[in-house]
Amino acid sequence: MRATVLHAPFDVRLDTVPDPQLVLDSDAVVRVVAACVCGSDLWSYRGVNDVTEPKRIGHEMVGVVEQVGSDVSTVKPGDFVIAPFAYSDNTCPACRVGVQTSCRHGGFWGGDDRDGHFVDGLQGELVRVPLADGTLVATPGMPDPELVPHLLTLSDVFPTGHHAAVSAGVTEGSTVAVVGDGAVGLSAVLAAKRLGASRVVAMSRHADRQELARAFGADDVVETRGKEGAQAVKVIFDGLGADCVLECVGTGASMDQALRSARPGGMVGYVGVPHGVTLDVPTMFGRNVGLNGGVAPVRAYLDELLPDVWEGRIQPGRVFDLSLPLEQVADAYRAMDERTAIKSLLTL
Amino acid sequence: MRATVLHAPFDVRLDTVPDPQLVLDSDAVVRVVAACVCGSDLWSYRGVNDVTEPKRIGHEMVGVVEQVGSDVSTVKPGDFVIAPFAYSDNTCPACRVGVQTSCRHGGFWGGDDRDGHFVDGLQGELVRVPLADGTLVATPGMPDPELVPHLLTLSDVFPTGHHAAVSAGVTEGSTVAVVGDGAVGLSAVLAAKRLGASRVVAMSRHADRQELARAFGADDVVETRGKEGAQAVKVIFDGLGADCVLECVGTGASMDQALRSARPGGMVGYVGVPHGVTLDVPTMFGRNVGLNGGVAPVRAYLDELLPDVWEGRIQPGRVFDLSLPLEQVADAYRAMDERTAIKSLLTL
Repeated sequence: MRATVLHAPFDVRLDTVPDPQLVLDSDAVVRVVAACVCGSDLWSYRGVNDVTEPKRIGHEMVGVVEQVGSDVSTVKPGDFVIAPFAYSDNTCPACRVGVQTSCRHGGFWGGDDRDGHFVDGLQGELVRVPLADGTLVATPGMPDPELVPHLLTLSDVFPTGHHAAVSAGVTEGSTVAVVGDGAVGLSAVLAAKRLGASRVVAMSRHADRQELARAFGADDVVETRGKEGAQAVKVIFDGLGADCVLECVGTGASMDQALRSARPGGMVGYVGVPHGVTLDVPTMFGRNVGLNGGVAPVRAYLDELLPDVWEGRIQPGRVFDLSLPLEQVADAYRAMDERTAIKSLLTL
Repeated sequence: MRATVLHAPFDVRLDTVPDPQLVLDSDAVVRVVAACVCGSDLWSYRGVNDVTEPKRIGHEMVGVVEQVGSDVSTVKPGDFVIAPFAYSDNTCPACRVGVQTSCRHGGFWGGDDRDGHFVDGLQGELVRVPLADGTLVATPGMPDPELVPHLLTLSDVFPTGHHAAVSAGVTEGSTVAVVGDGAVGLSAVLAAKRLGASRVVAMSRHADRQELARAFGADDVVETRGKEGAQAVKVIFDGLGADCVLECVGTGASMDQALRSARPGGMVGYVGVPHGVTLDVPTMFGRNVGLNGGVAPVRAYLDELLPDVWEGRIQPGRVFDLSLPLEQVADAYRAMDERTAIKSLLTL
């Protein structure tokens, strides 16, 4: 089969690799229908994370089950399924408290599992899915093609935005500021409105992203950044700042902006993978600003989020503004790296 | 009048100082009935916080109102009152969201207010209370003497323990670990049980403190510290760690222990004034462990907590294991510094 391999920084290729097989009785093999590129893939693509050897990449996909092992009971060949960006048994103590990303038997795509068996990346034609019962979620039926991008966001980007909102405690009537206008930040805007936020400020300086933020429900847009941006958020919210700030970037500067944008007693929900983030603990302490979040436990949220997507109440797939065939995966990465695309969809 | 002055590290004295007067129409003057020494006073006492000139100290007291300014309407001469460790107007936007420690017009005892008028420390005979309507809470009547220590804890230590529990999200059925066996940590045990925690682990290696922790409702005691202590907490809680960890010390080591003791997706509520605390953000992110808390907004909690104390359902004043007349304030500090007392009460 063909699958995406990151050979070195900025060198991503579609290579021919062995077809995956069922290895364990709890496995499934899934034929990918659509995959996509994540902002977090860019950390490796840009060489910020070390790339010491060619590495299979990609952690978002939807597809159709081809085969299942003898222990698999919740999905069957022919099912259309969503694969969260982490696989998990969904039964261990960590999964039972809703943190499937900390599953005792789980892991991430594109590397060896805990038994030493290779697990494919998801930007490829076929995937061996470990712990298929715990990992995959089948849709109620075969989706119409136009629904596929929206379902694909359930693999990572939309539940990650949702996790930022949940972690920050967004609920009916919350005031919210979102730091980051990438696909996750835009998803966080949609998630916050879905959870009942009374007013959402998107922080963005790009007209196309501002437009999508407003389409997702943002009430205000702040174009300034850093201290100045935080001050603008404060002015909007009673001179105090927002109840909930959703940090969707992961840099020191974005975190600083997020912490400054929160009201006293407010909470920053963060889902941007932290790179060089340090926290001014005494200032957080003095203002009672908390920090919560992390690697989104996507699997925990799918039962809640899937119906809203399946029934068309929300269209999170609007974050995809570029769609390319898998053959052009290198272009898909380049577009995101150069920020000419918000998020690149890969069709198979 | 006589009031406590910290002249230099380890040099605390009862000095004669000017009697406070009403300065603003929103002021009250209160005659102190009981005060106490806080663990946070020791940061200055020990010279960890700079002491560059003699400084009035103390921020916990209960007393009887002597005079009120013409704008004061919620308390009157003769009322028995509780003074939170921060004064506040209780009406500004920060107060309205329950963070009176960030009050736009408020401040802390023992220094100038925002108008440049001197505000007394609370380890003295009399106190000018700014913003008396917003700051003071009157009890339903004159308390019996044996109730005074319990009421005094409402000035700081018990609501601070409560704030740790609230910040960590303790609710009916939560599993809890408490780091720190000082008066705040012990108060946090009591607060967590009061909020319905199903199981509370106190981390303590001192027999007398363990005993009080158990009297306050601790179900288990862990004597080990650091990684070993956190591992012991994990073993107690399903191999995962606690839902809520209450950090009541404020050092780098105690914070590290707290973060390690939380389960994936758990929350650390912290109220120990941070000294040299740095956070391993990537590890917190990977485990979805959050951090929330800060300077306790005592005033926000008094309406909820006072009835339980007034009606004797809880006895938070059991943290006082030394009671001395104000004249012996130096001994009261020494006992806490040397850890021969958990918390020192000062009677007037």
